[in-house]
Amino acid sequence: MNPFKIAIIGCGTVGGGVAKIIKEINSTLSDRAGKLIVLDKIVELNATVAIERFGIDKKHFCGGGEDLSAEEAANYIKDILNDPEISIVVETVGGTSDFVHDLCVGICKSGKHLVSANKALLAERGKEIFKAAEENNVSIGFEAAVCGAIPIIKTIKESFSGDEITSVSGILNGTSNYILSRMLDEKLDFDVALKLAQEAGYAEADPTLDINGGDAAHKLIILMKLVFGIDVSMEELKFQGIQNISATDMAYAQEIDSKFKLICYAKADGSSVYGTVAPMMVKNENFLSDVNGATNAVRTINRYSGKHILIGAGAGSSETASSIVADIMFIARYNDRMNNALLNKKLEFKDLSQFTFPYVITFETEDKPGITGLVTTEIGKQDVNIFTVTHNRHVSESALFSIETQPCTLEQINAAIERIKTQNILKAEPKVFPILY
Amino acid sequence: MNPFKIAIIGCGTVGGGVAKIIKEINSTLSDRAGKLIVLDKIVELNATVAIERFGIDKKHFCGGGEDLSAEEAANYIKDILNDPEISIVVETVGGTSDFVHDLCVGICKSGKHLVSANKALLAERGKEIFKAAEENNVSIGFEAAVCGAIPIIKTIKESFSGDEITSVSGILNGTSNYILSRMLDEKLDFDVALKLAQEAGYAEADPTLDINGGDAAHKLIILMKLVFGIDVSMEELKFQGIQNISATDMAYAQEIDSKFKLICYAKADGSSVYGTVAPMMVKNENFLSDVNGATNAVRTINRYSGKHILIGAGAGSSETASSIVADIMFIARYNDRMNNALLNKKLEFKDLSQFTFPYVITFETEDKPGITGLVTTEIGKQDVNIFTVTHNRHVSESALFSIETQPCTLEQINAAIERIKTQNILKAEPKVFPILY
Repeated sequence: MNPFKIAIIGCGTVGGGVAKIIKEINSTLSDRAGKLIVLDKIVELNATVAIERFGIDKKHFCGGGEDLSAEEAANYIKDILNDPEISIVVETVGGTSDFVHDLCVGICKSGKHLVSANKALLAERGKEIFKAAEENNVSIGFEAAVCGAIPIIKTIKESFSGDEITSVSGILNGTSNYILSRMLDEKLDFDVALKLAQEAGYAEADPTLDINGGDAAHKLIILMKLVFGIDVSMEELKFQGIQNISATDMAYAQEIDSKFKLICYAKADGSSVYGTVAPMMVKNENFLSDVNGATNAVRTINRYSGKHILIGAGAGSSETASSIVADIMFIARYNDRMNNALLNKKLEFKDLSQFTFPYVITFETEDKPGITGLVTTEIGKQDVNIFTVTHNRHVSESALFSIETQPCTLEQINAAIERIKTQNILKAEPKVFPILY
Repeated sequence: MNPFKIAIIGCGTVGGGVAKIIKEINSTLSDRAGKLIVLDKIVELNATVAIERFGIDKKHFCGGGEDLSAEEAANYIKDILNDPEISIVVETVGGTSDFVHDLCVGICKSGKHLVSANKALLAERGKEIFKAAEENNVSIGFEAAVCGAIPIIKTIKESFSGDEITSVSGILNGTSNYILSRMLDEKLDFDVALKLAQEAGYAEADPTLDINGGDAAHKLIILMKLVFGIDVSMEELKFQGIQNISATDMAYAQEIDSKFKLICYAKADGSSVYGTVAPMMVKNENFLSDVNGATNAVRTINRYSGKHILIGAGAGSSETASSIVADIMFIARYNDRMNNALLNKKLEFKDLSQFTFPYVITFETEDKPGITGLVTTEIGKQDVNIFTVTHNRHVSESALFSIETQPCTLEQINAAIERIKTQNILKAEPKVFPILY
């Protein structure tokens, strides 16, 4: 069999997992590819740690298994990019630095296929990298960048190729979902659940990107690029996290047969694509409501084949690594350019504010007569049809009540809220959440 | 762009759906494939009906849109197999007749790729067809043969190629699942629910294969071939259906936090693969328990990437057709031989009787003292560890009680039951169901 040589740059949690799988099931992989899958070279600053942690033979490490200086590493990378025998370079350095950006562009320009799990880089600075791949006729495998083990990229690209995807949504951040699950199960407030998630290893010491929706936004941006062929920036995609969800909000969600989930949502509508990342009240009839803990899930709705749901591990060393190895296998077998989008139509991105959705608005007001009438009247004046009013909670001097609307736009809701605010009856900023059926 | 020509043999529910998709999104498909996707010829006996039903231009129909005799159809098929410009033939005739078997072998021998949704044919008589494909270096696309729209074949073949699948299970028959869902929701007995399913169009006038597990068995046989590389016959695979589940059984399942589902299950264990199709009590913590109505779902457990679940439409014209079009696209893009199994190890198939599983055994006995002790003693004598005993139901002169076991083999259970039978205390054949966690 012909050898198919692979280099790995960055041998941490994910890169080490890749090396381990290639070692452990090498003959299976080679049989499937019809080529001898060869792990040729690894570049890692902390080589000694990686060798110990993943049990990889030090012969694979540039520098013979010794730790490397940044300069030594850069030189070894240069050698790899100049080595005509290496077909694929796996980038598992992470981050969005110029170094890693230039590395990825350089891999493509050297005519080698790139496989990467780096969602932040591809979402925020992917344009030039994809362009370099296009121009040099090489593939970018990025299955591992969206939802770890869930094979959503290849499913969209290869299995839904006989169909048109009209919407894609999902639970794409395991940390948020873990926190929301614990808040619900144990009736905890956000801060307490976050602390427990950190103690259990499901949230990092600095959990900002997981909590504020940024990580989920990265993944949605990549999915929108693949499904709809559009480039959306983090600024354009208004994303929210789960920080402002209270135990009271959770209880109300249960009352209307739903659960809070941090939802990524994008939908094509005519020549527009609407998208957002926001906590939504997901109705119990929707499978996404059953996805608990650190598990991820993606739902697509397709023109011909209807609703699809994929559920699996969104993170983890061997889980994410298995997706990288699948990309390597795909490129080894088909020598495919994996970076083409499915839709070539010219679509325009819009945030959700002009798209109709059913919403829940929760008001905290003074506890006195006439307020329900005033609030609901203002909502009606904006042409928003009310579906239900739940007015059964009184907290000290306040009344808390929630209005479920028929599908309407955020613009309509915000206009009503602005007018209500002029009446000086609100004790807090109203909370507005979409409902996902 | 180069043309990539397709012929369809059999333009009924599925074949007509394929023609419709190819017509409606032709430019999208051609863009994706990098080839002009051309629906060249259709052979259908009842052409006039198909033209009316799917709105397909009669120019595509051999015979100009007139109904054909069997002899005319056979001649047109011969022409197609001799036409060097046609790359793929879609077989949507159905059934396991010699005619369709020979047609599929003939397609492969003519050097054309074959795409088929025919699960019964591939499961029962697939060996010679796969051999013909192998020898003639053509692909067999069979995504549509297992669970309609769910892209489980490509997921296994392309997305799990960097991993090893240790078990595959699922709800692969929508009719059974629809009946079980109605039995549970409306507390119906099987016969009543079957009738309702027929009235609602979810069960055929002759529902035998759906109800007795045969259809699910076909799909599991194809999955086992793909995942484990083994050929299993319908005789070797002991399959059961849902006919013997009573409303009482359903109620007990609820009591132990589970739901009845017709489960296809296969698991590799050393050099053996254990498999079965049987109604199981699926614990509520397992996602499969949430899959209701005619929806299908497949779960795999993978060595590196853990648990995966795919949920989607298991049947339907455009749903199944979309999977066929995806196969056409894949072959057009990659010219791939899709028929290779993932595992080349020599594995041996065994039915579930020697494989350990937790079970529920429900006894209907005389209602008198001493019986619980007698039954549980015999079970203990077979070295079966009891997990729970639920003895809270008395029906007229009978006592009904259920024993949940720790994992044990069916052989052990059957041995215990044989000994209990000699005591003449049983009023009915005990019911034995596996529990799926």
